[in-house]
Amino acid sequence: MIRAVFFDMDDTLYDTSGFAAIARRAAVKSMVHNGLKCSEDEGYRRLMEIVKEKGSNYDKHFNILVERINGNPDPLIVVNGIITYHNTKFAMLKLEPETFSILLYLKSQGYKVGLITNGKELKQWEKLVRLGMYPFFDDVVTSESVGIEKPNPEIFNIAMERLGVTSGTSLMVGNNFDADILGACNAGMQSMLINSRLTQEQKETLEEMGCLYNVREINNLLDLMKIL
Amino acid sequence: MIRAVFFDMDDTLYDTSGFAAIARRAAVKSMVHNGLKCSEDEGYRRLMEIVKEKGSNYDKHFNILVERINGNPDPLIVVNGIITYHNTKFAMLKLEPETFSILLYLKSQGYKVGLITNGKELKQWEKLVRLGMYPFFDDVVTSESVGIEKPNPEIFNIAMERLGVTSGTSLMVGNNFDADILGACNAGMQSMLINSRLTQEQKETLEEMGCLYNVREINNLLDLMKIL
Repeated sequence: MIRAVFFDMDDTLYDTSGFAAIARRAAVKSMVHNGLKCSEDEGYRRLMEIVKEKGSNYDKHFNILVERINGNPDPLIVVNGIITYHNTKFAMLKLEPETFSILLYLKSQGYKVGLITNGKELKQWEKLVRLGMYPFFDDVVTSESVGIEKPNPEIFNIAMERLGVTSGTSLMVGNNFDADILGACNAGMQSMLINSRLTQEQKETLEEMGCLYNVREINNLLDLMKIL
Repeated sequence: MIRAVFFDMDDTLYDTSGFAAIARRAAVKSMVHNGLKCSEDEGYRRLMEIVKEKGSNYDKHFNILVERINGNPDPLIVVNGIITYHNTKFAMLKLEPETFSILLYLKSQGYKVGLITNGKELKQWEKLVRLGMYPFFDDVVTSESVGIEKPNPEIFNIAMERLGVTSGTSLMVGNNFDADILGACNAGMQSMLINSRLTQEQKETLEEMGCLYNVREINNLLDLMKIL
């Protein structure tokens, strides 16, 4: 019997990638209007190369983009990108009704609810607070705060210990096969893959690890209610 | 005859300190509501000690405040402070009508207009863009971009050279006696002190330097029009 449900955050509880894509497109449009010498499509493509190169937590993507395309990091163009990115992102930040419903349902049914997320402590907390989600969580574990990242099973063990639950009664919900599903499997938890489908290869991996029967696929968070 | 007018930004064109004070008070209120264990007045006083200790460009004032008062840097409290600070600051950012009027007047009369500011390149540009002031400026010199700070006369020389003007036809307007007035005097420029009054000691200093006659006091930016 499941007593605790742990969630991944980005692209599980909140469409981080989708919102980031819109905010980056808006930023590129503003930079092109302010003198970035390329089309909006090329600007976006080049920006995504830089994001891939430097990682999403790097804070100078726009500086590099402007420098690469215009030959110098014109501050007027860079700050127009930064301002538009933030304005767009904050304007869109809103909890999806289905996320709200499932978190409320879990609390009303007496489940313990935890968050296990790879990312910077304050950046992840900022999302929880801006989205108004944090009161639903009994505990929040960020990789930065504990110094261990998913899929290392240790981060799952820490999260379960902090909530006072065991792996046999714990469920992990996430969108990333390696980080969320393999990690949870190695910690002995059940897991649910959301917004993604298991490939044949992934099924075989889980079978070899002896935990395929512990993993389920769901289309959206509300499907959790039908299964729990 | 004056042909170019150079401005300082913070507390000259824009009430940086006043807006920061309001945004910090709002941030402390939010942190106290979210569990900071002190009164709002004590929180603000302790925050200002930290700002003084670390400088205003440091980015972890709130972390330190929460750690000092609560014994640990509870991320929920820290991010509530950060979010409220930024929301309040951006909500208030608006060009004062008198600043707009004087910049428009100078442009309409054919003056060259420059900015000479101590601060971080992108942070200062962000203010110019968010306030909508940047189109008025023929050139912007930040200390970070040239590696020299006011009152070093070299930063004034660079600014004048970039606008193609000489010290004999240039006026510096700023609120800080040391940075703006002494610096401009040492670069051979005329200057105007705004939002502040010369003390007797400052007058004597200027007299010894032989440039007291080159310095005037104004109450607000609009007084510039009467004098030019």
